[in-house]
This record gives sequence, C-alpha cells and structure tokens, in this order.
Amino acid sequence: MGMTIAEKIIAAAAGVDSVKAGDIHTVELDRLMSNDGTTHLTIDMYNNKLKNPHIADVKKLVWIIDHNIPSDSPKTAASHKKMRDFAREHGIDFWEGKGVCHQIMMENYVRPGELIFGADSHTCAYGALGAFGTGVGCTDYLYAMVTGKSWLLVPETIRFNLTGKLREGVYARDLILTIIGKIGAAGASYMAMEFVGDGMKNLTMDDRISMCNLCVEAGAKTALMEVDDIALDYLHARGREPKHCFKSDEDAVFAAEYDIDLATIEPIVARPDFVDDVIPAKEALGVKIDEAFLGSCNNGRLSDLRVGADLIRGRKVHPLVRFLVVPASNEVYEAAIKEGIIQTFMEAGAIVMNANCSVCWGSCQGVIGAGETLISTGTRNFKGRAGHPDSKVYLASAATVTASAIKGEITTADKL
Amino acid sequence: MGMTIAEKIIAAAAGVDSVKAGDIHTVELDRLMSNDGTTHLTIDMYNNKLKNPHIADVKKLVWIIDHNIPSDSPKTAASHKKMRDFAREHGIDFWEGKGVCHQIMMENYVRPGELIFGADSHTCAYGALGAFGTGVGCTDYLYAMVTGKSWLLVPETIRFNLTGKLREGVYARDLILTIIGKIGAAGASYMAMEFVGDGMKNLTMDDRISMCNLCVEAGAKTALMEVDDIALDYLHARGREPKHCFKSDEDAVFAAEYDIDLATIEPIVARPDFVDDVIPAKEALGVKIDEAFLGSCNNGRLSDLRVGADLIRGRKVHPLVRFLVVPASNEVYEAAIKEGIIQTFMEAGAIVMNANCSVCWGSCQGVIGAGETLISTGTRNFKGRAGHPDSKVYLASAATVTASAIKGEITTADKL
Repeated sequence: MGMTIAEKIIAAAAGVDSVKAGDIHTVELDRLMSNDGTTHLTIDMYNNKLKNPHIADVKKLVWIIDHNIPSDSPKTAASHKKMRDFAREHGIDFWEGKGVCHQIMMENYVRPGELIFGADSHTCAYGALGAFGTGVGCTDYLYAMVTGKSWLLVPETIRFNLTGKLREGVYARDLILTIIGKIGAAGASYMAMEFVGDGMKNLTMDDRISMCNLCVEAGAKTALMEVDDIALDYLHARGREPKHCFKSDEDAVFAAEYDIDLATIEPIVARPDFVDDVIPAKEALGVKIDEAFLGSCNNGRLSDLRVGADLIRGRKVHPLVRFLVVPASNEVYEAAIKEGIIQTFMEAGAIVMNANCSVCWGSCQGVIGAGETLISTGTRNFKGRAGHPDSKVYLASAATVTASAIKGEITTADKL
Repeated sequence: MGMTIAEKIIAAAAGVDSVKAGDIHTVELDRLMSNDGTTHLTIDMYNNKLKNPHIADVKKLVWIIDHNIPSDSPKTAASHKKMRDFAREHGIDFWEGKGVCHQIMMENYVRPGELIFGADSHTCAYGALGAFGTGVGCTDYLYAMVTGKSWLLVPETIRFNLTGKLREGVYARDLILTIIGKIGAAGASYMAMEFVGDGMKNLTMDDRISMCNLCVEAGAKTALMEVDDIALDYLHARGREPKHCFKSDEDAVFAAEYDIDLATIEPIVARPDFVDDVIPAKEALGVKIDEAFLGSCNNGRLSDLRVGADLIRGRKVHPLVRFLVVPASNEVYEAAIKEGIIQTFMEAGAIVMNANCSVCWGSCQGVIGAGETLISTGTRNFKGRAGHPDSKVYLASAATVTASAIKGEITTADKL
C-alpha cells in the first residue's frame, strides 16, 4: 500500500520502510524550534526535573525570541534572560528580535523531508517546503531535546487538489480561510493537510507558507506540499538542499479528498470569535474597525506588504483607525525598505513596528481594549485573543485589512 | 531693572510691563500639550469633578499618544481610547504613534516667546526655540484647559555662558550631563536655565533641544535660549514665525552665572541611580551592559541616529547586547531611512522600533530585568526607571551608547 507524504517523512524518521496512519512510531527529529512563549518552562524542567540533564544534539535546536520583543515587563525580561543565557551556555542557535520564529525558520533552516518539532502551534507552516512541522508543548519539547527523538501517531491525510488560479484581488489567505470554513475548526483534527494539483504552480512560496501555517486552525497535525521548482528555487536561493522530496504515492490512502478550483475563491473574512465562521468579505462590508494589523507568521511577508503598500500608496489610514504594519522578519523589513514599501506605509500614517508577533499574539504590542474591533492578518480570532475579552477580531487578507484600514470599516480592495 | 528671558515671557503672558523673580502672576497660556501618561486622569476630572466642564480655547490643546504605543494592555488601550474619543469629540489636535510628544511639538507647534504647559516633565525642551515650556500635573493641566490660564511663580534664572566648540566625539548630551553633574539634581530647582554666549553658534537645533530637554533633571522650571538664525531657520523651514524673540536685558538679575568653555567637555556617563552622579566615560570603561538604547525626546533625533550609524556601519551589535534604536518621530524615521541609517542599524543587528518613548519611559517596550544593565540616551536613571528595581541605567551620548552596544561594555567611540 502506498504512502502519503506525511507517512513517508515519518517512515524515514523512524528508520522503517513503511508506516501507515494510526501507527505509533519513535522518530528521530531533524530540528527543534522553540520561542519565548514557553522556552522558560522547558528550561525550568530541564534544570529541576531531570536526573541527568543533557541535550542529545544541540545542532538541532533553534531558539527564537519573537513574541514579546523587546520585552514588555521585568518578568518577560527575566524569562528572556533565562532563555538567552541557557542558549549561550549550551551553544544553541539563538535569534532575538530578528523576526517571527516560523519566518526565521523558513528563511534559514527548514529543508524538504525534515521532521521538525516547534514549541508553537503554527509550526505546520514548514509544509510549504515539504517538511513535516508540528507544534508541541514544552514537555514534549524537553523530551525531544534530551533524546533527539519523540513518538508520533501517524496522521491520516486530507488531500486538497487545487486547480486553476486565484483571481486578481484574491489571495492565498482567502483560500485557506475558505478551506477552514469548509471543513471546520476541527475538520482536520490530528490529520495532515496535503495540497497538490495544477493550481500549485500559481501559488508563490509566500502563498504556500500562509496556507500551511494556518492549517493548525483546522486542527491539523501538519500541512504538506510537494517540493516543486518554486520550492527548490526558494531553498537554493538560501543555499540549502532538500533532505527528501516526497510525493504521495498514487495508491496512498486519504481520509478525504477535496477538489478546489482556485478561481472560485473570493475575498473572505473570518468573523469573531471563530476562525471557521467565514463569510465572503462583501457580506461584512461596513463593520467599523478600530485597529488593523498587517503582519504575523501568516501574512507578514514581502508579498503581503506589497499588496498593502500598493493599495495605500497616495491614500491615508482612516483617522479613526490605528494601522499596525509589522514585517515578519528583518529580511522582509529590509527588502520592504528597499522597495519603498515601509516609507509608503509611514507616509500613509501606519505604525511600522519591529519584526515580532505583535497583536497576533495579543499579549502586548498593539492589543485592543473593551468594545474595540480589529481586522487582522494574524492567525487567530478567539474571544480575547487580541486583548480585552470584550473585543472582536476579524481575520482577512492583507488586501482586505489594508482596504479596511483606509476606509475605517471592513471593505474589499475593489470598493476603495 | 532689566528682565531675563523667562521674566519677559511671563510678563507678556501676564499682560504686564514687568515681572521679577518671586512674583506670582496669572498668565495666558499659548499651548497645552498632554500625552498618554496622564491625559486619562485629566479627562476623568473634567467629566466628573467640574460643574461646568468646557475648554477655554481648544486650538491651544495638543494631545499625543507616545508613551505606550501601540498599546501594551487592554487597560492601556482603554486609556488611549478615552483620550482619542475625547480629542475627537472636542476637536483637539491629536497625534498617535507619530513620535515622542516633545519632538512632535518642536517639529510642528512651538514658537519663540510662547508660554507652554505640558503634562510631561521634559516640556522644558521648548526653550531651544526660545519658548517657556514647563511640565505640570494633570490638575494644573485641567485648570489651564478650562480657563486658558494658570498662575506662575516667576523663576529665578541661572545663566550659562557658553564659549568655544565641542571637540570631535563630544556631544551636547555630554555637555548637559556635565552641567547637571556640576550643579546637581536640585541645582536649578524652580529656576530657569538660560544658555547664551558665542558657543551657541556651534550648537545645532538637535543639540539645543537635547540640552533644554534635560534641564528638568537639574530641577529646572524651564530652560531658555535666545532665538538666533539657527533657531529661525528651523522655525521657517517648518512655516512658523516667532511670537516674541526675547533676550535677557544687560541689567537682568541672575541667581548664578557659569562660564563654560565647550572645548573642555568630554564624554560623560551618569551612573546608576542618580542623574547627577556623572563621571568621565573613560572612568566607566569595561562595565558590562545587557541592553543599549538610542532614542527618546532627549537623543532620538536625526543627528543622534547619524552619529550612531556612522559608528556601527560595517560593525555588529555585540552578541550579548540588545540594541534598541528608536527614532524620536516619524519625520526623523523617514529621514533616517532616506539616508540609509535605519538599514545600517538593522544590518548591524539593532532592533528598530516605531517612534515612541520606549525604555526611557520604562513601562514596556524594552524594559530590563533583575540584575541587568542598560546604557541609554534616555532622560532618567533612577532606581527601577528602566524596569526591575534591581536593574541599572547609565546615561550617555548617542556615540557612547552605540560604541558600548558594539563592544558589549561601556566604552567611548575612540576606543572602538
């Protein structure tokens, strides 16, 4: 019986010829990413709970401070210091204030065919490069750090056959929100979401990262894509080579298959407080907003900023709106300066922040108050995600977010 | 008997021919600046304590959100919303996320000869344009807002006669820290500090703002400078004209006079935890630092960023240091992008933040933890100012801060 991409990566990592969904395997991990969300907890356990604390292979570890950077409180500063000191003491690859963890990983580490644990739920983003990334808590992370291994229940795979091309003014963000709306927030629980088909050639790396990144919002264990020339170009431009380039076998078994014609997708918003409560953006027109956010590991890349800048050039942020623009990494930030994009946003009245998680994380850096409404390219919109429990978050594409920032209410770019 | 600049401004504002130090006068105010530090308290009193709430002249008011921007908590967001909504309802000039209040005021409002209350202690910065700026609490602010007036005890004046020119590698920041060290943190309590002399022609507007801004750290009620061509050029470039250009009369009475040869000034640091505990920077060499901050209303202008960028170009931030670079306004930020300065800082590994008060304010945005040491171009270094009570802050010039960020310990630019 054939295998899916997910099964092939797990089989390779388990050192066996074949695995199938439902099996449990011990796997060797290629990479272990952790950020300032939970690393301090991992360190506490490492220092206080282990009889023989050690790191199996320090070269696998990448630690990134991206959530509250620069630090918002002495408590955060202490937590960062713990992480920084430990990383230095053990020689762990360490990044601070250079960008959102998943973007740093895509730009600098991820290779096709790898199996990567990240102590952050959106680790599934790495599927855009054909890697099996999955989010884990700090105890699983600790075990993997000490042993280099972990166990995995092999997930079933849902396959999405994409055809055609997104229409102008429609983005990968609209596509993935549409898919999540279709299958529901638990629609891919503990499954791999695999994207294939002729339509893939019309999706850039930025599109693909955005799609894979959000799959956890449908409950997915991971997201995966075949490694084509677009992926290889991205990889080679950064001096990396694949570990394995897997495709699902023709006789692989899928839990479900969906055919999606990209041309049928339209601008979408997810309404508060559920990521799968999606409606066409045109049905949300006129909802007043207080803040707009363009950024995050989901939608803070150069192409997203370009879309926003092209819309806002020569226009102004609405006087009743704060518009936060936050590049996903310094690589993105510097490229955006070079193209004049940052300048365009600033001239329009946006607040351009240092590369970090910003209000997507909702713990500082732009959180909203009671009764306020945010439209966001971030990852989540559950109750209180962006600040006060009585605030509301709409999720949408860079285009819809920017158009709304200009108009002061939810609107689509074509309505400007 | 002749009058000082301070006396002349107060006399004009009181509508009388002559005042002298020690008199109390009712004065008409030209401008009332307030920021998100205390404006919400002013609004609460306005709404809840006044029988007949009204604003004497709304055109005088300028409200600026600069301290915690973007907001760090739902509580801050609510406080900002209160300020924003009130400003809009009453038609108050309102700025948010565009820069530190005093820099916004200098760039856009302050005119020579004006009497300006600001609900922020560093309002004395406006003396660089020959305006009497002074910090007030929210109750005094409220009274002034309702009546357009307030009372002032006419301050005595200490005069500083400046001659010569700062040596290369020495900055206005070193000069003002030297002066504060000389007269002490209470050395100018409730006095005006007036700067005159041939040396003034060698001090740019950025230098002058930095000097006047910090005078409150010597306890000064205000700081004042004569309006010369350098000041007029700055003013005219921004389309403004003076209200009055005052000089102190030859027979004006000064509480003290100091002669300072600018060539004698050397790089200075103020040690934790007192702003007047200054020593030559060369005596502080080798003190390990965890964070460096280049920014604030004191030292976040274009010339400061230029100094830092010139030092760090082709070098890197020390791996054990976080280096925060925060332009004092978007005008500064955009000019710095144009000159490639922001790019230089980012390439060197600095974190470039949106224009705000950052860690100078010490409430979020880069605060440090227990046992950590900051070297800062900010305004204050009292115990706990930058975060944890058990952290330390050294104050220094943009050059010394940047050099230290590169070396990982306090150093001067010539030692790199």
